Amino acid sequence: MSSNILKGSCIIGQSGGPTSVINASAYGVIRTALDSPFITNVYGAAHGIRGVLDDQLFDMGQEDAYELELLLHTPSSALGSCRYKLADPDVDDTDYKRILEIFKKYDVRYFFYNGGNDSMDTCNKISKFMQKVGYDCRIMGVPKTIDNDLWGTDHCPGYASAAKYIATSCMELYFDARVYDTSIVCIMECMGRHAGWLTAAASVASHFGQGPDLVYLPERDFDLKVFVEDVRRIYNETGKCLVAVSEGIHDKDGKLIVEYGADNAATDAFGHKQLGGLAAYLASVIKSEINVKVRDIEFSLLQRCAAHCASEVDVQESFMAGKKAVECALLGITDKMVAFERSYDADGNYVCNLKLIDLTEVANTEKKVPDNMINEKGNGMTEEFFEYVMPLIQGAPEIPFERGLPRFANLKKVLAK
Amino acid sequence: MSSNILKGSCIIGQSGGPTSVINASAYGVIRTALDSPFITNVYGAAHGIRGVLDDQLFDMGQEDAYELELLLHTPSSALGSCRYKLADPDVDDTDYKRILEIFKKYDVRYFFYNGGNDSMDTCNKISKFMQKVGYDCRIMGVPKTIDNDLWGTDHCPGYASAAKYIATSCMELYFDARVYDTSIVCIMECMGRHAGWLTAAASVASHFGQGPDLVYLPERDFDLKVFVEDVRRIYNETGKCLVAVSEGIHDKDGKLIVEYGADNAATDAFGHKQLGGLAAYLASVIKSEINVKVRDIEFSLLQRCAAHCASEVDVQESFMAGKKAVECALLGITDKMVAFERSYDADGNYVCNLKLIDLTEVANTEKKVPDNMINEKGNGMTEEFFEYVMPLIQGAPEIPFERGLPRFANLKKVLAK
Repeated sequence: MSSNILKGSCIIGQSGGPTSVINASAYGVIRTALDSPFITNVYGAAHGIRGVLDDQLFDMGQEDAYELELLLHTPSSALGSCRYKLADPDVDDTDYKRILEIFKKYDVRYFFYNGGNDSMDTCNKISKFMQKVGYDCRIMGVPKTIDNDLWGTDHCPGYASAAKYIATSCMELYFDARVYDTSIVCIMECMGRHAGWLTAAASVASHFGQGPDLVYLPERDFDLKVFVEDVRRIYNETGKCLVAVSEGIHDKDGKLIVEYGADNAATDAFGHKQLGGLAAYLASVIKSEINVKVRDIEFSLLQRCAAHCASEVDVQESFMAGKKAVECALLGITDKMVAFERSYDADGNYVCNLKLIDLTEVANTEKKVPDNMINEKGNGMTEEFFEYVMPLIQGAPEIPFERGLPRFANLKKVLAK
Repeated sequence: MSSNILKGSCIIGQSGGPTSVINASAYGVIRTALDSPFITNVYGAAHGIRGVLDDQLFDMGQEDAYELELLLHTPSSALGSCRYKLADPDVDDTDYKRILEIFKKYDVRYFFYNGGNDSMDTCNKISKFMQKVGYDCRIMGVPKTIDNDLWGTDHCPGYASAAKYIATSCMELYFDARVYDTSIVCIMECMGRHAGWLTAAASVASHFGQGPDLVYLPERDFDLKVFVEDVRRIYNETGKCLVAVSEGIHDKDGKLIVEYGADNAATDAFGHKQLGGLAAYLASVIKSEINVKVRDIEFSLLQRCAAHCASEVDVQESFMAGKKAVECALLGITDKMVAFERSYDADGNYVCNLKLIDLTEVANTEKKVPDNMINEKGNGMTEEFFEYVMPLIQGAPEIPFERGLPRFANLKKVLAK
């Protein structure tokens, strides 16, 4: 821990895939930093660490307070994101020296990085380098990811809003599938290559009797024949079958199911290769095996940017995570990520507590859906998952609307001199 | 016009594809009918006219008032829908005789049919038959369709909510596409085989500078080469290009563009034919022609059932249309569809007036997007469209939530004896 009082500028950067609420965390950092007498300037890095390397820093002090507040409800990464991986500093320290140069140029003493696994690794490497060269600064990670796969935290900011969007859409699709008295199978594809948290959220609608009949996660091996029989059984019983699948489902040999289709994808008359997604592939399988009308729906980018269907709990917690990072850094803490710990009060109400974990611990470790949350057959979720996820998706934020559409933040992004 | 006072039962049926607000119209009919002293019983037909033919009528009087009110915000067709086409009564009047039998059995004197073009045709045929056989009853059409293609009405209940969902999602996707400083093309597919109203709605986000760069409707011939050049130009200028397309776009010979891909679709190792949608096909074209990262997004069923993103104007107007149909029938009017006429008050505010049009006029006529609403190049919308659509998408309804998800109506559906 550094000495308590450290005066200087701060940088906030966003990294990795966006979420509906990553800007709520950024706002937590920016607002708290702007309000602190010890932080002289607040800079937003354009496209994460790339903005630091390229000396592209926005002066957040020049933004209107109202526009900054709109960040609470603005999807995507307002400052811009990147997927830039820093080299091992022992092999190549060029980037680190450049970062140090920029830190010195702007008297940066606080660095907040808002991202997932890789971003915490970036944070950690910068922190270690600054310690090595004896540059006094405080570096904190602020978590985000719709994938919910960060180690050491009960859940990740961004997950709950995506989960709420998926559960809501699945419920609406359940009603839609019952419009006609004819048969239909509907296959819904959610993001998640290695962890099935997002797909699991579809089961919340099922818990209320208005969701998918089958839910498949990458945590379990997927067998195409068993899948067809699962669908056939439910379809024969009810005339309908709704299925939610993770993009990352694979067979017992680890081969992705979506590759089954891609192997034989054709080219059209213009020589363009035809490539569908996983849901489209599974739909074609069911169509030819069961001869039933099938719809395939891919939530695609919508699930990570549907701010109009965010969870209020998620918005508040994301903001708190950003705020806490600044408060801790001001107290002298460094090299940590803000994390969530769950508890329940005397009335059994969910409480979200903030804690700090070492960046070294969290970097590059993935948290998958635990066994006890997946049912025995691997085609649905258990009560344990339901109890885990329910407190997170509560509340609908009051989205500011203007002329019928959401009013998102419009930042001036004035470059720092 | 029949004599003014006519006492008896009523039937409400829903037909064709659902919308987010078709149940708001049904509620308008059901609530008004239940409150009328002249209507003895209110029946909901299971799956439209099929429910009448099969004697499957739900007694709406047995439903809880609160659950009925929830219909205002419940997507899909709560009573069930159908796509059943009645025969020409001069050729085969079996169905009509059966309908008459059911009308007599339940003393049905009022029939309300909630649907699109085909449904108005059904309404019209039943009405003519009843007049021919001298059975005194009043038959009214209540419009609905996300496609907005009903003739004789300024707009259709259901369109505005789908439009709002599409514009909102496009705006969110616009932000998402700007996360990285890398290049991306994103192709978004909207419903609409013959009329491009839904795709046109994507341009509302563009009007605010946060939407698709290109918008293609089936009202204009689509040229694949011009499309590629349009995308290439914008992509070269900005590094991003967002495109909205109607599923029904076709070339100058009338061939659907989606068929370009389907022609050469391959089969996988299991013999399943691989069939992607239009957006997937166009994405593959752009990928191979411009060599850029492309995402394809199909709004699919979501655009017709996303009640969580409905337009309050649409909810209210849909309810009014149902209510008006009953009020008019009680006054002795028959054989009409409720329609909307737009005016503006002294302050320039949009006003929606109700009018009645003959069923014979509306049945089986399609209203396409007029020329003056489409730009010269056929790749975007004009100010005329913007002015047309804006009043319709205003207001966000207060959706009742329960435990974090929307609370939709849960009807008992007690069969009438």
